[in-house]
Amino acid sequence: MFNLVSYMEEHRQIADAALDRFLPKESERPQVLHQAMRYSIFCGGKRLRPLLCMASAEIFCGSHEPAIIPSVALELLHTYTLIHDDLPVMDNDDLRRGKPTSHKVYGEANAILAGDALLTLAFEVLSFAEVCAPHRACHLAYELAHAAGSRGVAGGQFEDLASEGQEPTPDQLEFIHMNKTAALIRAACRMGAIIGGASESDLEKIGSFGERIGLAFQAADDILNVTSTPEQLGKATGSDAEHRKMTYMALYGLEKAREKANSLLQEALVALRGLSLPAPALEALALFIVQRDS
Amino acid sequence: MFNLVSYMEEHRQIADAALDRFLPKESERPQVLHQAMRYSIFCGGKRLRPLLCMASAEIFCGSHEPAIIPSVALELLHTYTLIHDDLPVMDNDDLRRGKPTSHKVYGEANAILAGDALLTLAFEVLSFAEVCAPHRACHLAYELAHAAGSRGVAGGQFEDLASEGQEPTPDQLEFIHMNKTAALIRAACRMGAIIGGASESDLEKIGSFGERIGLAFQAADDILNVTSTPEQLGKATGSDAEHRKMTYMALYGLEKAREKANSLLQEALVALRGLSLPAPALEALALFIVQRDS
Repeated sequence: MFNLVSYMEEHRQIADAALDRFLPKESERPQVLHQAMRYSIFCGGKRLRPLLCMASAEIFCGSHEPAIIPSVALELLHTYTLIHDDLPVMDNDDLRRGKPTSHKVYGEANAILAGDALLTLAFEVLSFAEVCAPHRACHLAYELAHAAGSRGVAGGQFEDLASEGQEPTPDQLEFIHMNKTAALIRAACRMGAIIGGASESDLEKIGSFGERIGLAFQAADDILNVTSTPEQLGKATGSDAEHRKMTYMALYGLEKAREKANSLLQEALVALRGLSLPAPALEALALFIVQRDS
Repeated sequence: MFNLVSYMEEHRQIADAALDRFLPKESERPQVLHQAMRYSIFCGGKRLRPLLCMASAEIFCGSHEPAIIPSVALELLHTYTLIHDDLPVMDNDDLRRGKPTSHKVYGEANAILAGDALLTLAFEVLSFAEVCAPHRACHLAYELAHAAGSRGVAGGQFEDLASEGQEPTPDQLEFIHMNKTAALIRAACRMGAIIGGASESDLEKIGSFGERIGLAFQAADDILNVTSTPEQLGKATGSDAEHRKMTYMALYGLEKAREKANSLLQEALVALRGLSLPAPALEALALFIVQRDS
């Protein structure tokens, strides 16, 4: 029986230790900027993208080791998106991972710069992947940048803001969730597989798995925003409805949103079982993503 | 006699054509985000960093061709810094390159996202450098990310904001100008040299050249902010004094700031003449940078 709790704890610690190694020390100038970068990284978080990346690498090369650098890059990049999304001119959130958001602590200008610096550091860290995977480093950089840019996360956030208050449509919802959330989770799975040496065919399948599980993650998020409490979630609940966000809940309602999350999970598992090798950690993580209560 | 005017025009066109090729079309979704990205890239600009990068490559490999990709990455990255620096919570500038700034046209949230997307695209484009320089692509990514991050441009901008209204000190001024301006100009020169196949010793010298010329560029900028008109400069003048920015002018006054710019130029030229090959284009560009009137 696969023990997900200890797997997650062990890999979270690996990711955290690596993040600590790659982030500039708080004592390094400009100190407050480096404090802001560390504040947002170390104020909690499940490290889901590093976990998916390491679990994917383990399938193909039996070790999480080569996936540490891409995992750090993924978490740095993900954290930048949270800081910028929380800004007053974006989603205006005061709470994230149970703590005051970056701009509440450091001010808006510094929060923008901390996000910028984390995004930039993600690619600096990734440039070190050359050491353990000379022929794969550029592929990794491409995957991360493409998933994060205007055709990915930034584009999704743009449409998310643009669609606030509009009547939800399945097409618009799909675009937002696919780009804002699923693109980076898909990239996490693919980057682990790339550095693990997966075949083209396995890479394709693990990408489908990542995309489906990314959408399922967002569906679960949309549901939790309504059914959960701020204490459980570590951030404001009910905010989607307040901002008239385009969500699975707004479009389909609770029961259908749950069905949607489950059917996405099933599609993810089908893709995963098509791999040439077994993937017990990813399977357990997929179930966790949909069934989590925070 | 080296013809700088035609050199600059020819290379600016090369850079612009490449930028157009790598930027998503305005018709691609999300359209307004892609319009905002293109707006800031194509509303003018001397393309100084691409010019320095291509000129550096030409010294060592006789062609600007391999430097096109790093040049595009440099300009994308530079433009992101302008967009974010101009934001109301940062320097609050309404005019840039003679046109309304991004947030004036697209709003603050979209300006932040356009900047984020340009920064991300810089690294996506750079990942294509593998095609023409497989062993140098990661080195290039490291140079760009290191120069742009919290130990470079973002750190410089942070200290610039933090020092507003404070009594200027040479140490603080040096830190700000070295990081906010010189780091990326140094990286432009180094990236061209790296892709051109320069020796370690030449790389060192061209890095010193870039650093000195970067500081000289900023000294000239500080002077122009006082002595020039908004029409000449395409942006507000007198704004440094208004924001009580830490500048060469504030610290040294006009005459000494001019002396400083000239001595930095001389140091740059000494470094340049130490190269194993002649560098007429870089020498002419160095003179232009200090003597320009806009």
